[in-house]
Amino acid sequence: MDLDNDPAFPLHRRGKIEVRPTVRIRDGAGLALAYTPGVARVSQAIAAQPDLAFDYTWKANTVLVVTDGTAVLGLGDIGPKAALPVMEGKALLFKEFAGVDAVPICLDTKDTDEIIETIVRIAPAFGGINLEDISAPRCFDIEDGLQQRLDIPVFHDDQHGTAIVVIAALESAARLTGREFADIRAVVSGAGAAGVAVSNMLLSAGVKDLCVCDSQGLLGPHREGLRGVKADLAARTNPRAISGSIEEGLEDADVFIGVSAGQVSERALSGMADDAILFALANPTPEVDPAVAGKYAAVVATGRSDFPNQINNVLAFPGVFRGALDVRASRITSNMQLAAAGALADLVGDDVAPDYIVPSVFDKRVGGHVAEAVAAAARADGVARL
Amino acid sequence: MDLDNDPAFPLHRRGKIEVRPTVRIRDGAGLALAYTPGVARVSQAIAAQPDLAFDYTWKANTVLVVTDGTAVLGLGDIGPKAALPVMEGKALLFKEFAGVDAVPICLDTKDTDEIIETIVRIAPAFGGINLEDISAPRCFDIEDGLQQRLDIPVFHDDQHGTAIVVIAALESAARLTGREFADIRAVVSGAGAAGVAVSNMLLSAGVKDLCVCDSQGLLGPHREGLRGVKADLAARTNPRAISGSIEEGLEDADVFIGVSAGQVSERALSGMADDAILFALANPTPEVDPAVAGKYAAVVATGRSDFPNQINNVLAFPGVFRGALDVRASRITSNMQLAAAGALADLVGDDVAPDYIVPSVFDKRVGGHVAEAVAAAARADGVARL
Repeated sequence: MDLDNDPAFPLHRRGKIEVRPTVRIRDGAGLALAYTPGVARVSQAIAAQPDLAFDYTWKANTVLVVTDGTAVLGLGDIGPKAALPVMEGKALLFKEFAGVDAVPICLDTKDTDEIIETIVRIAPAFGGINLEDISAPRCFDIEDGLQQRLDIPVFHDDQHGTAIVVIAALESAARLTGREFADIRAVVSGAGAAGVAVSNMLLSAGVKDLCVCDSQGLLGPHREGLRGVKADLAARTNPRAISGSIEEGLEDADVFIGVSAGQVSERALSGMADDAILFALANPTPEVDPAVAGKYAAVVATGRSDFPNQINNVLAFPGVFRGALDVRASRITSNMQLAAAGALADLVGDDVAPDYIVPSVFDKRVGGHVAEAVAAAARADGVARL
Repeated sequence: MDLDNDPAFPLHRRGKIEVRPTVRIRDGAGLALAYTPGVARVSQAIAAQPDLAFDYTWKANTVLVVTDGTAVLGLGDIGPKAALPVMEGKALLFKEFAGVDAVPICLDTKDTDEIIETIVRIAPAFGGINLEDISAPRCFDIEDGLQQRLDIPVFHDDQHGTAIVVIAALESAARLTGREFADIRAVVSGAGAAGVAVSNMLLSAGVKDLCVCDSQGLLGPHREGLRGVKADLAARTNPRAISGSIEEGLEDADVFIGVSAGQVSERALSGMADDAILFALANPTPEVDPAVAGKYAAVVATGRSDFPNQINNVLAFPGVFRGALDVRASRITSNMQLAAAGALADLVGDDVAPDYIVPSVFDKRVGGHVAEAVAAAARADGVARL
């Protein structure tokens, strides 16, 4: 690291976010309204009717961005303080892209139960919980445990944010190559947070022939000793009961989605179907070099900003929370996530091309369009309070 | 409550604070610096050297304002959501009066150990902890427990903020009436958070003849079964071993400081020394009507903005944290609090008068002057890291 010459350091000096008043106190009368004694009347009103907190505090527009620092970007377990710049970045993006206020919280514990308890205890002042960079498999239990205890949305962005943008990209790519989800043969490489969420969302979106591969090979009935989410995925995927490595899975596959750090060989790719779709999303090094991938696929996407078709969560999480907050949703359902993916693909629309399957992150329409779709799905699912 | 006509409600709509970016993302290059991949280099630097979090995140300028909602203003235990408008108000004042970023956290637990654990776990991203509106006696154990576990300042404002402004006001009033702290006979009515802190600070400031009165009468050797802070105060006060009620305590007393909800009779006041000093700080109803108090005292102060000499914590907490953060203090010592009080009295200076014993809350010099004094005291006490 080069604190003197790397422009990232001066940009980060004193952090990237601040807390600002939205009302000004100019004199004693202003102070007497915004603080004591005026504020006491607002507090009394909320004490009598707690839902008024949504109207008279920042709760309705504010989410916690919470991490334990265990799975930060590609850096792994770097601890809570080192995770803070990333969480501040997330808070910055929440505001810039969807007007959502976000508070970064970096937890000094890695214990699943302690994390759940801590977040539940600090939740009253917030309208949603965005979990971030928490390693698998704890992230699954933490998200489930929190959502059971809280009546505000809990959303692990590394899972669902990624999955939403992948499904959107796949909708565009399928359209481009003349495929229907129900007929697609897909392989997901990686069964961590992103791999599990992408796989579940592919199933929800109608994909029937899906194989998931972890470091030991394809999941399926032949794999013994699987537990938790992997056992669940093994039971719901691999309908042709293939055993072996990613190479066996990719035989005649239409779609490869890589969300692991592992590499995939050209030999494996060469067995894929014609006009294949190849998403190599590992960062900073994709599972396949994009130049090589182009030899075997009609559509290629990565997680990097220096190649076309960047699969970037920032396309999803700001609008997803904007929509959820706008209708005071109590949770973020599978349909709300599918609606977000559909909204992204919809923005691409007829302009779809091999190098344009998701909108640009700087497309100003994205946040609002995703939010509207998410809010409508929340109402349809009966989880909206407005 | 009158949501339609009370101006406090429209002013509070959607809350009083927001989170804003301090850097702008204009394009892909900006995004690549503020977020991935640029942010990863900053995170790696902090992982290698955790104190860099003070330089490259908002930690150095950001405090938590934490309550459990059990002792909010004069409203008592109204719960975490109802406490939020007050905590937002505090955050607003932190920024307006001292440029400190403050995040309100309203806890959904009243258990002392759970509160300590929760705050310790969320502390890594913050430079200080301002405890607020937590009922006695839990507030004492929570503050002590937190400060033992954390290397950032922990400050219960209802205790120390109040005490600092009271001591400042008393310095001015003593000067005005020609008294020295060492010769003062003082009575504090109330042994809750504020009463205990004011009493301890009076002793630290050199007052020798101090009596403290709780709902059962004067503390002293005659009181059996006292525990915790009250037993400690009983052992260190009441040197003449007076027993009885506030009335016996006030006989020939120079100073009365009321920080309880109880009333004090004219009969009791009539026994005080000539040119007495009378601080009736209960809100919204002072222990003595200020008009009546004027008959028995040369200097009168209250907690209300509609009378002269308002003892308002906002004179203290913004500057105290500004000073502590500026030198990255690990705690707020007794000397730092005395320095803050001295700085406030110093600003009044030679303009001191019966109706001007503390600066106005809108005196722009206050925050900076208090901060400088606090920072210097932190360095002198060896608790500063800068």
